[in-house]
Amino acid sequence: VSGALERLKDRAAEIHTLRGLHRLLEWDQLVIMPPAGAGHRADHLALLGRLEHEWLSDPELGRLLDELAPTEASLDPDSDDAGLLRFVRREHEKAVRVPAALREEMARASTEAKVIWQEARASSNFEFFLPQLERSFDLRRRYIACFDTTDQPYDVVLDDYEPDLTTPEVAGLFDEIKDELVPLIAELRDRDDGSVLTGPFPVEVQIALCEEIVGLLGYRPGTWRLDPTAHPFASGPGIDDVRITTHYHEQTLGSFFATVHEFGHGLYEHQIPRRFAHLPIGAGWLSGLHESQSRLFENMVGRSLPFWRFFYPRLQEYFPERFRGVELDRFYAAVNSVRPSLIRIHADEVTYPMHVIMRFELEQAILDGDVELRDLPRLWAEKIDTYLGIGVPDDARGVLQDIHWSWGLIGYFPTYLLGSVMSVQFWEQAATDVRDLEERVERGDFAALREWLGENVHAWGRKLTPQEILERATGSRIDARPYLDYLGEKYRAAVAV
Amino acid sequence: VSGALERLKDRAAEIHTLRGLHRLLEWDQLVIMPPAGAGHRADHLALLGRLEHEWLSDPELGRLLDELAPTEASLDPDSDDAGLLRFVRREHEKAVRVPAALREEMARASTEAKVIWQEARASSNFEFFLPQLERSFDLRRRYIACFDTTDQPYDVVLDDYEPDLTTPEVAGLFDEIKDELVPLIAELRDRDDGSVLTGPFPVEVQIALCEEIVGLLGYRPGTWRLDPTAHPFASGPGIDDVRITTHYHEQTLGSFFATVHEFGHGLYEHQIPRRFAHLPIGAGWLSGLHESQSRLFENMVGRSLPFWRFFYPRLQEYFPERFRGVELDRFYAAVNSVRPSLIRIHADEVTYPMHVIMRFELEQAILDGDVELRDLPRLWAEKIDTYLGIGVPDDARGVLQDIHWSWGLIGYFPTYLLGSVMSVQFWEQAATDVRDLEERVERGDFAALREWLGENVHAWGRKLTPQEILERATGSRIDARPYLDYLGEKYRAAVAV
Repeated sequence: VSGALERLKDRAAEIHTLRGLHRLLEWDQLVIMPPAGAGHRADHLALLGRLEHEWLSDPELGRLLDELAPTEASLDPDSDDAGLLRFVRREHEKAVRVPAALREEMARASTEAKVIWQEARASSNFEFFLPQLERSFDLRRRYIACFDTTDQPYDVVLDDYEPDLTTPEVAGLFDEIKDELVPLIAELRDRDDGSVLTGPFPVEVQIALCEEIVGLLGYRPGTWRLDPTAHPFASGPGIDDVRITTHYHEQTLGSFFATVHEFGHGLYEHQIPRRFAHLPIGAGWLSGLHESQSRLFENMVGRSLPFWRFFYPRLQEYFPERFRGVELDRFYAAVNSVRPSLIRIHADEVTYPMHVIMRFELEQAILDGDVELRDLPRLWAEKIDTYLGIGVPDDARGVLQDIHWSWGLIGYFPTYLLGSVMSVQFWEQAATDVRDLEERVERGDFAALREWLGENVHAWGRKLTPQEILERATGSRIDARPYLDYLGEKYRAAVAV
Repeated sequence: VSGALERLKDRAAEIHTLRGLHRLLEWDQLVIMPPAGAGHRADHLALLGRLEHEWLSDPELGRLLDELAPTEASLDPDSDDAGLLRFVRREHEKAVRVPAALREEMARASTEAKVIWQEARASSNFEFFLPQLERSFDLRRRYIACFDTTDQPYDVVLDDYEPDLTTPEVAGLFDEIKDELVPLIAELRDRDDGSVLTGPFPVEVQIALCEEIVGLLGYRPGTWRLDPTAHPFASGPGIDDVRITTHYHEQTLGSFFATVHEFGHGLYEHQIPRRFAHLPIGAGWLSGLHESQSRLFENMVGRSLPFWRFFYPRLQEYFPERFRGVELDRFYAAVNSVRPSLIRIHADEVTYPMHVIMRFELEQAILDGDVELRDLPRLWAEKIDTYLGIGVPDDARGVLQDIHWSWGLIGYFPTYLLGSVMSVQFWEQAATDVRDLEERVERGDFAALREWLGENVHAWGRKLTPQEILERATGSRIDARPYLDYLGEKYRAAVAV
């Protein structure tokens, strides 16, 4: 048996290495690669994708898992080996369901989506985009058909990103949020025009600013990288090579908040325990849990009053002409101004959830067969009007703004909001356990926060499910109440300043 | 049969993709990677190395080659398919000879060598280095034993880098060069002290200069990259993603000549024909032939009088304080000054060959059993004294200066000099075929040179062997005579200026 466990670990480690390579290639493509290299990159990614599916669905891996089933049952469920066996079993069982041909077609569609989406968005041409969208949803439907579905086809896609949440749970949570946020947005909207945050902010100064803030938060230069890219993301092949990115635009300080956000993602990967960092459990969950770590840093830290009490004088030194004479209170109100807008990725903390909820509602309706894809522009405009009270002037600023659906990322949007919800649960528990947490933030001391997250979230890797990790850390599964209370209190106060 | 050929091409293409990935990972490690990422990188490279060896030595590939042998015999030998079958057969037959365990041990020794070598060199401690050197030569001896050797064990290692040259041929060529160069060096040495080329040259100005020169030579920004690194090299995953590097040091213009050198390597890979760029024949020979392309640009172009007639005024604009009042003739003499020195990679065009020849002589004597590794420091000093007339003050500037032997690159050194020799043969043929080649260089027009190299060298990929390519292009196999005549004429003239 110990021989079987070692063999399984060897195979699992190779699958994990393949995924590290995959992330490195994606980082290179988005940050470094000359554009003409896209053809070679498609070959690289197709090869890695084929190998990953072959190795995961290998019958020999299945035999090893069968042989090890009694061992797994006898182990402490919290042990590394039990966690590894659970995780690999889950991945193997999902992989064997999906024929290689379908996997490859999904990968090809995903590669081809990018060019089509870019062209459609640039010309705001939904008709041109529709066939790719049909193809993508059709492939997802074929994927869903590979599994024993309940009466909720959406459960299958949700399970890829949120292993232990069901569609009704998410729908209930989102309804609760919607019911409170729609009136809150109407109450708060446009009380601050955010003009204090208008540039110019010279890019070279922003670069120095972002390097300073990640250094303060806990980035280590010989282990991390921070690079510019078009759409910020965090990646890297492993715990000792963490690569975060940001985007510099002279007219805004978006690079600052993006950097703090991506730092949270990076820290999650960086603090995975070294003893299992070479195995598939040695990574963060690509789900709401990952997003909770980035939102926690972006919002609970980076948009908080304690943080800006600490850091605003420094920001004023970076941009003296812009912020000389601007009081902290006014700056803080601008950082937290609530303004309904069309583009999800530019939305503020209070209106952002509505962008996610409407996408969740639409993709669920599509998979349930209640909605035709060609009706999406109309349905999109209706929801934006109902939830945010604004009009959609064109599809580029409507249904064409996201690549996700054409890429095959159907069922992924909820993770963005689930992450925000959980980030408040984690933050409040951390503030209970570390009694002077806010004072520490106000002193620029983030070590205790890093340690709390390391011990209570990151230390599990993927040994437990996201909801299990949340429950171990906070005593509760996902719950919208703390999140809604936080938004109400923070934003009513910020406006009152 | 056409089915078998397609299956073989699919397998060959995947092996080629794996190698492109491998090159990308090495580039990333040397240019971009945070140092702490070395552990992950070793895992990546070990996995790719294992897969490459498994796929190359796969019995199914052998069966396909057997099935295709009659096809191969019936094809035009210059056709792509014939070239592919020859090349894959050669690689398969070499791969099956070497047990996977030995391959892995060689790879592990190679990975571990770097740290040991760096420490030994930093402390100039040969005793500390000796065990790693013993291990490396022992592994090479075991590798050689896998093949049917003639009485020349060196032939086996030479064949990995120079497929159709024998040890006696190389030895004869090198003796011919040595006999003429030792007295030439004594005649020319130290007539110019090169002080005109002493900095400071601000690094940001050097960066702009290097970007301009590669642009003039034929670098295309959306397809190539130029980045700084410690030891310049050229790499990249394929013809549409060519990555060259250089090293900036404020006190010298070494970055300029390194950039021109690496451009030559990059152009070779960039001009591989698109129709077979996804197959193993779709790459340059990692041998003297590759080095001939870089040396041609570095020396025939970048250290020539026509080139500097064109580019010296521009260089004066980059560094007005340094070069104002320095005549072209004086600058040209400094660019071509001959000064015996200890470090191979800093040697000039005339003394460089002696560094290669002494290494070739020593590694051959070691493999023949005529020399003990512990005697290397003494033998090194003797050869440096005999060939260059200078003393070796310590092992860091002697036998510890190169990583090659401890890395397992035994038999590789000759390629550096073979490349210089062939570069003159190619250049002279190009100058015969393109009658106004020098005038074009003097006008800064490099298109005809690129085209000549593309048609006569790069178009073959690895369909023919390096010596066959040389013979098709110039009518002759490798020949030291043109090279020695070139050195004598150029350097006696440069000094006379």
